[in-house]
Amino acid sequence: MKILILGGDGYLGWPTAMNLAQHGHEVVAVDNYLRRDMARNEDIEPLYDLPNLTERCRIWEETGGKPITPMIGNLRDWTFVEKVFQAASFDAVIHYAEQPSAPYSMLNRQAAMLTISNNLEVTANCIFGVREFCPDAHVIKLGTMGEYGTPDIDIEEGWITIDHNGRSDKFLYPRQAGSLYHTTKVMDTDLLWYYVRMWDLRVTDLMQGPVYGIFTDENRRDERLLPHFAYDELFGTVVNRFITQAVASYPLTVYGKGGQTRGYLDLRDTLQCVRLSLESPADKGELRIFNQFVETFSVNELADRVQQAGKRVGLDVKIENLENPRKEKEEHYYNPKHTGLLELGLKPHYMSEDMLVEMLEKVKKHAGNIDKHKIFRNTKWA
Amino acid sequence: MKILILGGDGYLGWPTAMNLAQHGHEVVAVDNYLRRDMARNEDIEPLYDLPNLTERCRIWEETGGKPITPMIGNLRDWTFVEKVFQAASFDAVIHYAEQPSAPYSMLNRQAAMLTISNNLEVTANCIFGVREFCPDAHVIKLGTMGEYGTPDIDIEEGWITIDHNGRSDKFLYPRQAGSLYHTTKVMDTDLLWYYVRMWDLRVTDLMQGPVYGIFTDENRRDERLLPHFAYDELFGTVVNRFITQAVASYPLTVYGKGGQTRGYLDLRDTLQCVRLSLESPADKGELRIFNQFVETFSVNELADRVQQAGKRVGLDVKIENLENPRKEKEEHYYNPKHTGLLELGLKPHYMSEDMLVEMLEKVKKHAGNIDKHKIFRNTKWA
Repeated sequence: MKILILGGDGYLGWPTAMNLAQHGHEVVAVDNYLRRDMARNEDIEPLYDLPNLTERCRIWEETGGKPITPMIGNLRDWTFVEKVFQAASFDAVIHYAEQPSAPYSMLNRQAAMLTISNNLEVTANCIFGVREFCPDAHVIKLGTMGEYGTPDIDIEEGWITIDHNGRSDKFLYPRQAGSLYHTTKVMDTDLLWYYVRMWDLRVTDLMQGPVYGIFTDENRRDERLLPHFAYDELFGTVVNRFITQAVASYPLTVYGKGGQTRGYLDLRDTLQCVRLSLESPADKGELRIFNQFVETFSVNELADRVQQAGKRVGLDVKIENLENPRKEKEEHYYNPKHTGLLELGLKPHYMSEDMLVEMLEKVKKHAGNIDKHKIFRNTKWA
Repeated sequence: MKILILGGDGYLGWPTAMNLAQHGHEVVAVDNYLRRDMARNEDIEPLYDLPNLTERCRIWEETGGKPITPMIGNLRDWTFVEKVFQAASFDAVIHYAEQPSAPYSMLNRQAAMLTISNNLEVTANCIFGVREFCPDAHVIKLGTMGEYGTPDIDIEEGWITIDHNGRSDKFLYPRQAGSLYHTTKVMDTDLLWYYVRMWDLRVTDLMQGPVYGIFTDENRRDERLLPHFAYDELFGTVVNRFITQAVASYPLTVYGKGGQTRGYLDLRDTLQCVRLSLESPADKGELRIFNQFVETFSVNELADRVQQAGKRVGLDVKIENLENPRKEKEEHYYNPKHTGLLELGLKPHYMSEDMLVEMLEKVKKHAGNIDKHKIFRNTKWA
């Protein structure tokens, strides 16, 4: 298939590009380095330096990978969008091109407005591009489990039938997100659902939980093919942060009571889920929604697991409960369904101590790069 | 009270400004003439010319009205937003400042993107302005009944309790809108609800149906104080359009079967609803939602009423069922609740033949201005 990846330089975008190329697809990877620029501006660059996207595509090819075509530019700019969509007649578009951080979106007014404008305009241009250049293409949009928030009823996979006053209808599952970033993802879903109904687009919305991990089959060939590894409060997902804190003898920062529960998955399972969705596309006029995670953990459970894994590599990991800078439930009901991707064939990588140990050992090699002041900056929600 | 009206030049904004001034409030009315510019660019200017906002404020004062302060500028520009919010310490902010047309939002890519960016950025700046300059102010946001679409269950006033698998929780009523414009209003509500929860804003979201009418108590003093009267497909609401078509001997354009049912209200009732909301504000941390309409009609019923009223003034009004350019249900269940504003004290103006006749007579005076080619342009949804 001919596949367009929007946000192909990111933590998930780049591993996806290599994985799909490895499986024989023709891949165009687009990025404007927004994620790298934000990290530099906020002085929270990743644990290790990485070549730019164009260079990574070259290195990938040198290691025997099937070519990935990089395109650098801003997808808010329609003249660039036209150029991108004219590059091939795409069978699928995978849309990762968003400001992806909840705490970043809460930093200040400018960061909030960037999150709103960037995420909505790029999603809109993605829709308009597909409509104009490849109306039959399958759009795979990375959504987030955070769209649902933490309701006091079971979370279904995207849809719910509501019986009310003796009548019944089916709706998008109600969503009320816990950050501005997550709220823009709710809006993305609304926008896609509208144009699915109007223009018969075919869309899969992957409601993904927090991802952890570094290694994939493809990036073991060459260190320079690894993904960004962020360990800061803004861009580091919680497991990756805790691993780094463990190495840096920085007590694991549990916010509040630590009962906040979410659905997590290994980076390799993100790749599987995206590929499985790609290979069994949504129908025309269908918004198909999967809840994309493998197992749920509370923050306390994650901290315990990292502490245990630390012992194996001789680290005495401390855990500290901080006053919660976020406004969120610290203890809550959480029962999200997630059978759709298993039915498509997902073979989960459950979180193992071996995997955590491998991450700890990798991060230890870069321990000299860790700036402790980057770990916690107390970005407040209210 | 000190009241800031965003979008103070519009069909609803200007009558609201005069009405609140008349009731003793200090009013600042802000606009960038987006609505006027769009009409000029699309060659669909209103039935009669009107002075600009600054001039209208002057005329209003000359007729004995309590001063209204105009401010001209773009609320997407934060430096202007700061200037606006520093103009007084406001008790309430009434937010009408949006691209308000469903068909305009479906016109083409540029119009769609303008609708998304303008509506979301202005709503965000409104929220950030209130947070920074007047965090206790009551925000009254004009939403739309169109956010709900036409579900097959009763429409509640904003909220619904869902019982599911033996548990229960309360959510925003599920919304799936019928145009891009209406979808941006869904997003507005999501954005407001997020910041109500995070920052304890006090917000009333008025889910308004289509408004009709010309005259209010205030604008009878001087013709130059009338609101814009649009009769074109993009900006004319259906009753106002039908009245003009009746005068112009242009058959009333009923789309499809004409069973499309909505909740309508008289312009004077919009003013009442806004004032009643203002005088009994939402609590801190409350998103209060009212369904703002008085009675429901199908398009067929509206056409019949205009036809009947036409007879009284000697017009032989024809009705024509056209192929529907929109993608919408032409026959559907529709049972929206609307008791909240009645409980606050709304005294409805039901649609009367006398009122329709007065509108017909007013439009007849300007019959020479009607350009028939502006009435129907067949903007397609799909």
